[in-house]
Amino acid sequence: MRISQLSERAGLPIGTVKFYLRTGLLPAGRALNATQAEYSESHVDRLLLIRALIEVGRLSVAEIQSVLATIDQPAALDEGMRSVQQVGVPKGKDVTAEQLAATLELVTGLGWTVEPDSPHMQSLARAIAALDSVGVPVSPARLKVYAEAASHVARSDIDWVLGFPQERQVELTLVNTALWEAMLGSLRRLASENQVARRRAGVPSPRVTIPTA
Amino acid sequence: MRISQLSERAGLPIGTVKFYLRTGLLPAGRALNATQAEYSESHVDRLLLIRALIEVGRLSVAEIQSVLATIDQPAALDEGMRSVQQVGVPKGKDVTAEQLAATLELVTGLGWTVEPDSPHMQSLARAIAALDSVGVPVSPARLKVYAEAASHVARSDIDWVLGFPQERQVELTLVNTALWEAMLGSLRRLASENQVARRRAGVPSPRVTIPTA
Repeated sequence: MRISQLSERAGLPIGTVKFYLRTGLLPAGRALNATQAEYSESHVDRLLLIRALIEVGRLSVAEIQSVLATIDQPAALDEGMRSVQQVGVPKGKDVTAEQLAATLELVTGLGWTVEPDSPHMQSLARAIAALDSVGVPVSPARLKVYAEAASHVARSDIDWVLGFPQERQVELTLVNTALWEAMLGSLRRLASENQVARRRAGVPSPRVTIPTA
Repeated sequence: MRISQLSERAGLPIGTVKFYLRTGLLPAGRALNATQAEYSESHVDRLLLIRALIEVGRLSVAEIQSVLATIDQPAALDEGMRSVQQVGVPKGKDVTAEQLAATLELVTGLGWTVEPDSPHMQSLARAIAALDSVGVPVSPARLKVYAEAASHVARSDIDWVLGFPQERQVELTLVNTALWEAMLGSLRRLASENQVARRRAGVPSPRVTIPTA
């Protein structure tokens, strides 16, 4: 197909498609002559992924460039999955070694096995420090509830990714990291509305048993 | 205290403090003369809150302006809590009435009572549409897991806020919305690391019973 049809199929203006071609987010089509190229279904799929990562995952073009490079290069599966899991991790001021050690103690106290030098440990330590600074320090009981919720979705994420052939697992880890994170954010705010409505009506919640770690 | 001490206490450069004064994020101090003002502990607290919302909550100055105005104006409690819960909700293209109706059906299928015109319904419908567009539509089973996790943290959020005096509840709903969201994001990524480590080692997860809605 030509660029005009590609643009229509992806629901993006031609100017945007050309921008993604120039920045290398979208691989070049098969050149037909000096000014025209032919595009395939794989170009449509790639554009739809880029569009979802920008509009819903809130990733920047630079972040998408780096993460698509990881998907396209055949690397070790574990390494690829770990790398795309870091997309969209907010950079911030470094936390102190003391804050990091205290955070690691909290996390291992949950029964979790994590990498102490994971960038997510830095983010977590920053969030804990921020709550301290506004006078409402994190209580172990509340951290436990959040950790249970996080484990519950992480198990589901990994089961889902492992249900696909290996060559798609890095791409689908990216979908989990960026798009299912948006799902969780929206659901969390809707769940608050539901909790308020339930309490007002005096309706108790049904219960379910989930894994804790 | 003078502006230099205020800046030191909040861990922010004097230029940043002056910017927050100019934009009205920080209320003016008590004027001592044409060029000097006296600031109080409440100025320190406000600066620490602004700093946490920017550095960890990733809110913009405009969003913080609007949300602090809600906190400072005595409004109905419910209205105030609903309003600060909308901070940081990503704006995006409108979803179709059909997409919104399908999303509402999914959410009520969870046993939840939500407001159909909530902005969070729009965000959820956009996330569902994005997953559809990349060829991995949301399954009801997986949505249920995410919804259980969201309910679990939402119950904890509301219990925590209601444990404080009413006049602080709008401010603490903001802390929940922005800062505990960052906690959940970091914990979710660490939980994935833990799940991978557990599976590799063949260690099963302990289980806990939680409310489902």
